Amino acid sequence: MNINGEMIIGASIVRGAAGTVRAYNPGTKQELEPAFGLATSDDLARACLLADAAVEPYRALSLEERANFLETIAQRIIDLGPALIERASQESGLPTARLEGERGRTVGQLRLFAKVVRDGLFLEATLDSALPERTPPRADLRMRKIPVGPVAVFGASNFPLAFSVAGGDTASALAAGCPVVVKAHNAHLGTSELVGKAVLQAALDCGMPEGVFSLLIGEGNMIGGDLVSHPAIRAVGFTGSRAGGLALAQIASRRKEPIPVYAEMSSINPVYLLPGALATGGAALAGAFVDSLTMGVGQFCTNPGLVIGVAGPQLDAFRAAATAALQLKPAGTMLTAGIHAAYTDAVGIRAGIAGVTLVAHGSSDGAGCAAKAALYECDAATFLANPALEEEIFGPVSLLIACQDEHELLAVTRHLEGQLTATVHAVASDHALAGALLPLLERKVGRILFNGFPTGVEVAHAMVHGGPFPATTDPRSTSVGATAIERFLRPVCYQDVPAGLLPDALKDGNPLRIARLVNGELKLPA
Amino acid sequence: MNINGEMIIGASIVRGAAGTVRAYNPGTKQELEPAFGLATSDDLARACLLADAAVEPYRALSLEERANFLETIAQRIIDLGPALIERASQESGLPTARLEGERGRTVGQLRLFAKVVRDGLFLEATLDSALPERTPPRADLRMRKIPVGPVAVFGASNFPLAFSVAGGDTASALAAGCPVVVKAHNAHLGTSELVGKAVLQAALDCGMPEGVFSLLIGEGNMIGGDLVSHPAIRAVGFTGSRAGGLALAQIASRRKEPIPVYAEMSSINPVYLLPGALATGGAALAGAFVDSLTMGVGQFCTNPGLVIGVAGPQLDAFRAAATAALQLKPAGTMLTAGIHAAYTDAVGIRAGIAGVTLVAHGSSDGAGCAAKAALYECDAATFLANPALEEEIFGPVSLLIACQDEHELLAVTRHLEGQLTATVHAVASDHALAGALLPLLERKVGRILFNGFPTGVEVAHAMVHGGPFPATTDPRSTSVGATAIERFLRPVCYQDVPAGLLPDALKDGNPLRIARLVNGELKLPA
Repeated sequence: MNINGEMIIGASIVRGAAGTVRAYNPGTKQELEPAFGLATSDDLARACLLADAAVEPYRALSLEERANFLETIAQRIIDLGPALIERASQESGLPTARLEGERGRTVGQLRLFAKVVRDGLFLEATLDSALPERTPPRADLRMRKIPVGPVAVFGASNFPLAFSVAGGDTASALAAGCPVVVKAHNAHLGTSELVGKAVLQAALDCGMPEGVFSLLIGEGNMIGGDLVSHPAIRAVGFTGSRAGGLALAQIASRRKEPIPVYAEMSSINPVYLLPGALATGGAALAGAFVDSLTMGVGQFCTNPGLVIGVAGPQLDAFRAAATAALQLKPAGTMLTAGIHAAYTDAVGIRAGIAGVTLVAHGSSDGAGCAAKAALYECDAATFLANPALEEEIFGPVSLLIACQDEHELLAVTRHLEGQLTATVHAVASDHALAGALLPLLERKVGRILFNGFPTGVEVAHAMVHGGPFPATTDPRSTSVGATAIERFLRPVCYQDVPAGLLPDALKDGNPLRIARLVNGELKLPA
Repeated sequence: MNINGEMIIGASIVRGAAGTVRAYNPGTKQELEPAFGLATSDDLARACLLADAAVEPYRALSLEERANFLETIAQRIIDLGPALIERASQESGLPTARLEGERGRTVGQLRLFAKVVRDGLFLEATLDSALPERTPPRADLRMRKIPVGPVAVFGASNFPLAFSVAGGDTASALAAGCPVVVKAHNAHLGTSELVGKAVLQAALDCGMPEGVFSLLIGEGNMIGGDLVSHPAIRAVGFTGSRAGGLALAQIASRRKEPIPVYAEMSSINPVYLLPGALATGGAALAGAFVDSLTMGVGQFCTNPGLVIGVAGPQLDAFRAAATAALQLKPAGTMLTAGIHAAYTDAVGIRAGIAGVTLVAHGSSDGAGCAAKAALYECDAATFLANPALEEEIFGPVSLLIACQDEHELLAVTRHLEGQLTATVHAVASDHALAGALLPLLERKVGRILFNGFPTGVEVAHAMVHGGPFPATTDPRSTSVGATAIERFLRPVCYQDVPAGLLPDALKDGNPLRIARLVNGELKLPA
């Protein structure tokens, strides 16, 4: 499939006429061919109106048709072959093996949502029988979830496939029965065009209503604001910076009819090294930590940006082993020139904060947008006194906090902002302290993990990739995993609706054969 | 139990020292004894900090202890006996039979949530097994919902029991495991004190941690803003006006850490009279409609403020029968002098809109804050051209829209704002039209009912008392029914957490004996 600098509006492949923009190779610092046409405000309006027109026909399809559409998108992405990986690597600086893994995750995600759709559990079908003899009589009440309507999706810079055009937000919104309008991330325009055309092809293959999917190209902020402001859009999925997420949330809250924004924004993902774990395997921990810190040049939402331990010989040994490991790590190419510049600036500011010292850095600066990893350190008092040290720096940098004792470690924990993850390294002798940490962490984070590292987010039913502000704008939700579908649904109750007019999910006899809550009791299909 | 003008802060009964306020009898237009002390900002801070301190001990209790607390509150409210009903009637002008029914609903609601808590389904326990042989290996992932933390509750004017101190918001928040700080509605201060002391007594009976419940008295806006702004508060439940709900939502969105506001605000609850239903039973429909319109002096969120039919002899017959029924309805005392004044003003403005005519009004103005019911009429073009006609008027007034044909009826429907309910009167010959209406209504409302009237909201599993903006600030939720608990929960994922540190809901062997989703399959307890 060729890359022509085009976008997708309903069933049409369109070249935007509001100027051009080019993708960029951060490894070579060269612009890439071709030029992409930018969407006009008419293009945007057309995509939104087509999405609105697709709401009724798309949600009226059977669950099987919806699931098949998701699986067909997955197959069409596979069919793009190595050209997709090659272009994504050029645009992101990410190695091909990583991108092949990400493609596997992306199609796995689409297939998981196909299964979720077929199961029908997401409909939360609920039936309460009429009680005509009761005083007062109870009506027949039935409830199901319906899609909220068109969803605007903003892809992330750091996952050109899994959090982009056909990533988790798009897959979960389409699974919920919502048409999607994606704004392509300008860091990977060619990748976006390829995947967008795969989605379009799948929509045509499956006879989907026009408007179920559109892909717009535009200069960042303006088209984003216009998209979130458009009356047809009913919810927003976003992965990116805190400033970007908050800006979209503000726009959404000032609409005539406010809409929810699911923004996954910023997290420094504390890693706790409890005393027993440090004593047992501190050196191995240091190596694994440095691998996690530098994986993907630190460009993960779940990058371990904070390491917390109790000062003493065992933490000293960890520091020494981490230093040795970090000094061997070569610089890596960051995703964009902007991200690289922001990283360099932020690390410079951190280095200048009184009380913060450099522990170690990676082996060298490289060519292009290459960034050197770094580990800094401060004591708990310095951390508690400097809110800037809680701000995420996107890239391979972390801060070690050496606490005086367990009491101070808990005080640092209570002070933390909301996070996507917290990690605890603990052996049996640490379980009393871990037990004291757990309830504090539960109130701060979306995912708690033991004896691992937070990078790597499994796509599963029990995954939570979310958390209290500023990790996200909505801690009741996750952007990864099966329950991400819940973000794009809302309940409707049907009272005494005649049998012939009821949706299938709520009909007597359970024709969809889904699990339903009947008079308060969960009933599985026979 | 005496009414002393006191509030409740944690385990203490306190008299506020920031001035006084009195309750008011809208029937006699007399102030009621005693004077109530207003909360100082210290009082508010103390209630919030005690709520914060109660989070861990309260959520650590067993589900059985939590359920028993809810049931004990219900019993303590019953134990207040006729004094509660008498005071509520004085403060609201509502008849005792209505208030006895409302008390039954309030305690029934607490008992339903006790059952919901024991069932444990609200925890949404989810387990994905480790797959150590997979490439890459999958960790052990488990998920459950936890309470969000302290919830601020704002009672409604129109339900001094069921949407107030121990109403649906409080019951669902306590069921979720969240401490609650209630701001008493100034229209029923004595009722609030009585119920508040019943909740306190139940908390003491059950050995609940101090701070699980507080009740503040304050002058409306200021204390409300301070409460929503307090960092300890993590979510807000509100039932009231559109202006009030939006003001709280704005305050919440501007916090350092924004929090969700569940505001149930405004709805005009369209009632459709389809041609067959009108032909079959128009006169009976007219009588039932007027009863619904004037019940509780029209002071329901679900009051039928809009009636939509197709012009013709059958609608003429409905109009004539509604006129006859309405003219027999005496004026009724409204809840407060402010509500009465707002109703009178709004009806006056409506009467002055060009194209709007008076169909009929109730028999007389009465003494005190008594209000005369009224039915107005306009054509569809007038309705579509006047946004003011879509605004809720709180009280016994409705607007009949006589459409030229079914096409215009559908156009009016597409134009509507979000609503709590829509009602369709239809017989078999109307089902084609009803089938065309249904998908439009699903996108506008939280509850669709056939051949009934929207007043009367059942507390059940399938109930949805919610809907798109401006009906609420969050159409993904309901403020009535079992799923209201979901508003105050958020998910946490546990990855490779050692068995001894896992919460009971997620332990191997399912010690809580709750339904769980295991590797994507729903498993009921044996």
